[in-house]
Amino acid sequence: MYLATFRIGDKEDWGVVRPELGLVCPARLWLGERAPATLLDFIRLSCDPDGEGLSLIETPEPNHGWLAIDDIKLLAPIPRPVRNIFCVGKNYLDHIEELSRDKDISGLNTQYPHYFTKATHTVTGPFDEISLHPDVTSQVDYEAELAVIIGKKGINISEDEAMDYVFGYTILNDVTARDLQRNHNQWFKGKSLDGFCPMGPWIVTRDEIGQPVELNISGRVNGELRQNSNTRHMIFGISKLISILSQGLMLEPGDILATGTPAGVGMGFDPPKFLTSGDVVRIEIEKIGYIENRFVE
Amino acid sequence: MYLATFRIGDKEDWGVVRPELGLVCPARLWLGERAPATLLDFIRLSCDPDGEGLSLIETPEPNHGWLAIDDIKLLAPIPRPVRNIFCVGKNYLDHIEELSRDKDISGLNTQYPHYFTKATHTVTGPFDEISLHPDVTSQVDYEAELAVIIGKKGINISEDEAMDYVFGYTILNDVTARDLQRNHNQWFKGKSLDGFCPMGPWIVTRDEIGQPVELNISGRVNGELRQNSNTRHMIFGISKLISILSQGLMLEPGDILATGTPAGVGMGFDPPKFLTSGDVVRIEIEKIGYIENRFVE
Repeated sequence: MYLATFRIGDKEDWGVVRPELGLVCPARLWLGERAPATLLDFIRLSCDPDGEGLSLIETPEPNHGWLAIDDIKLLAPIPRPVRNIFCVGKNYLDHIEELSRDKDISGLNTQYPHYFTKATHTVTGPFDEISLHPDVTSQVDYEAELAVIIGKKGINISEDEAMDYVFGYTILNDVTARDLQRNHNQWFKGKSLDGFCPMGPWIVTRDEIGQPVELNISGRVNGELRQNSNTRHMIFGISKLISILSQGLMLEPGDILATGTPAGVGMGFDPPKFLTSGDVVRIEIEKIGYIENRFVE
Repeated sequence: MYLATFRIGDKEDWGVVRPELGLVCPARLWLGERAPATLLDFIRLSCDPDGEGLSLIETPEPNHGWLAIDDIKLLAPIPRPVRNIFCVGKNYLDHIEELSRDKDISGLNTQYPHYFTKATHTVTGPFDEISLHPDVTSQVDYEAELAVIIGKKGINISEDEAMDYVFGYTILNDVTARDLQRNHNQWFKGKSLDGFCPMGPWIVTRDEIGQPVELNISGRVNGELRQNSNTRHMIFGISKLISILSQGLMLEPGDILATGTPAGVGMGFDPPKFLTSGDVVRIEIEKIGYIENRFVE
């Protein structure tokens, strides 16, 4: 099932998408008054043992009221996360190799993921324009990433059970100001400028992807293929990322976990290829779709 | 004005504290039905140009309905922050010196604060017990810190205007699992175990503190004075911390910014003095009060 948050007119809504038909059905046509107000509320309900959210799947789909995707504006599936986005750095070997010229952020370990966060206001829509914040940074870079949406509350989750906590997946560009990332030592600041986390175009539920999660992932700048890998090349797989993160730390429905980026980021080139005004970055992941954002001054 | 969130019976409430009298007055006795549901809502309203929250100061205080502080349970002033707690590392010179034996987290710069975040579930009450998470870490450490509560929405805030964005101050213990902080490279994980951010006992509004903010700050373990400094020794002062953080990053009412810790943390001793079960950590800051937490396995 493909679930999206969107704007129609000046109203925000959410619903079920049929990408192959180019159609979306608002949740309230499906569920009537039982429809939760937001997709985030639906995620919470659907994983609540007493909730009825999952009945959406069991309810016959309505045969009217579908909208053309072209007539709505897709937003990030969770436009206002309740806390920062969890991220992990250096999770693809080829990306670590390309970074090795920069000693400040090089290194490799296979035991301890480098978790950090992005502030909530970084989240923006899958096709929105993004400010380059030219007064603050001159080294804006892209990072194609698969993001996991947590569906269930849990702490100290074992690796074996971790996939039960996944509600679904989406695409995320972990936009990064490399100069701030380096200068401020901790990555948070360089990762957290407003608009630096475009997400979407929808959440694809876990059942649609299956296991193992082996999805082609690519990143293009103005059509030029820069990143091209597969999520099976992650150093820490999804189960491990969730399990280790949850040690002593309660995860919640609607939490977002970005799983790292493969090689091909702008900083990896010599000389580096940072984004400039007008550049269009398209991130594509198999079985999910793509997001495409223009960067502007 | 001293503003606290507390539990009375099984109900959560907030109100005005008179520490010198040992009394607290629930906000709804003061404001009647206009009283916002939570202290966080009050902060938002009081800084909203159209809000009426600040009328609390102009309203004559009620002469009945005050409760003894001993009859309530003080909670963190903002028990459920809407996003991660902003923090800064290495903001007192003497603390940087004591860390210099550990090359992984040493270094000094006076241009770029080391911002990082603590996850939302770290927040706990000013007198709550805190788990040492013995299955996850064996190096739990304390950090006495002054925390700033942001009152007004803003981005790209100048240093000159930064103090206008401060709603008030509180005390915070930036509890840290040193092994996780080091092993995971980025500090987030070691800073973010559940319960690792006791806060309180209340928010003291900006006007009570005045400027410059020069407050004695101390940390004691089982009565032994370990940290003893003054907030004037910060490398990056409050205005600078807010201004630099806000470059390209929207701050919101209710955001919490911890301003770093002075020397005397457990890791600074040789051999290190990490916390063990039963240890009581008391953090005290002039003009605010103290928080005191027992650590248990």
